[in-house]
Amino acid sequence: MKILLIGAQGLIGAAVAAELGARHDIVCAGRKADVAVDITDPQSIAAMYARLGRVDAVVCAAGHAYFGPLASMTEANVYVGIRDKLMGQVNLVLLGQDAVSDGGSFTLTTGVLADDYIRNGAAASLVNGGVEAFARSAALELPRGIRINVVSPTVITEALGKYGPFFRGFQPVTAARAALGYAKSVEGAQTGQIIRIHG
Amino acid sequence: MKILLIGAQGLIGAAVAAELGARHDIVCAGRKADVAVDITDPQSIAAMYARLGRVDAVVCAAGHAYFGPLASMTEANVYVGIRDKLMGQVNLVLLGQDAVSDGGSFTLTTGVLADDYIRNGAAASLVNGGVEAFARSAALELPRGIRINVVSPTVITEALGKYGPFFRGFQPVTAARAALGYAKSVEGAQTGQIIRIHG
Repeated sequence: MKILLIGAQGLIGAAVAAELGARHDIVCAGRKADVAVDITDPQSIAAMYARLGRVDAVVCAAGHAYFGPLASMTEANVYVGIRDKLMGQVNLVLLGQDAVSDGGSFTLTTGVLADDYIRNGAAASLVNGGVEAFARSAALELPRGIRINVVSPTVITEALGKYGPFFRGFQPVTAARAALGYAKSVEGAQTGQIIRIHG
Repeated sequence: MKILLIGAQGLIGAAVAAELGARHDIVCAGRKADVAVDITDPQSIAAMYARLGRVDAVVCAAGHAYFGPLASMTEANVYVGIRDKLMGQVNLVLLGQDAVSDGGSFTLTTGVLADDYIRNGAAASLVNGGVEAFARSAALELPRGIRINVVSPTVITEALGKYGPFFRGFQPVTAARAALGYAKSVEGAQTGQIIRIHG
């Protein structure tokens, strides 16, 4: 398969490239990757698809959201994640429907905060909840047997230095373990599923 | 209790006003209500709270989202619901944290499409999923015993003329039945709950 991987240079993206690259051709995309794309910019996404032509799978392991206390959270804080992890991924689907082969797939990324809540996490939970409901609904309408799933990893072992203080008591998983979820989505047959890698 | 009801002139809002108005003081807010507010405008929300002073409960039964096919859905279509039903309700919470009495509550509205999917519904599902995850997370951080819940009604009997074709096979509920969910949230003790009125 020809797999377009957005966010290939991130922690999870690199592990997905290692896992799927053993069996498939990976086209690495991202802000600093071979194929330059900024998912917060729909024109950048459209240009990427126009350049690449047909792909068999689109995997997104990119997208940020705001972390911070509810008491001081502003609309602008929430929109950071809406523009990036939420609408970035939604636009990858809306603009990529015609770029994916018959029977191909989209695999998006959310996270444990869709289901399990922490202080400072309300904006991230919002984004994850939105992506998951969108994907589950879009699965009903995608044409030509195209599938869509979401991988929801918990906190990643290799990222505990940065995120550990937010996720006390959560069992981390390695990036390699999380990457298996993407293989299950891309190489499996299911659609409309949330593949939870919650440790 | 002094209850601020946004969207009081809608189908569900009117039923909520009838249900809660029997026992409480209702302040009706909305685009055409006594207290004018446009929830898509944060300045309008802030002005409303500044005018009203302390309230014991905030109930939102307002907010629209886009319905239409995935194949032709645009970013602008999705942002209709993000600006209105999603961020409108989030801003009611972010800007209203200091306006609600100790032990008071927020009650937001989503809908069955958070959990059960239909053609043309991906943008609405996204919005509902985002609101629900935000509310469940915000419940952990609201101060002074303030609670937050979400009422998720299915299609409303009185609205079948407009929405029936989207919701074939769904068991509708009357607006009066849906309104009981708001009473449960406002007058009950739970927080962080999705109160599903799914018929």
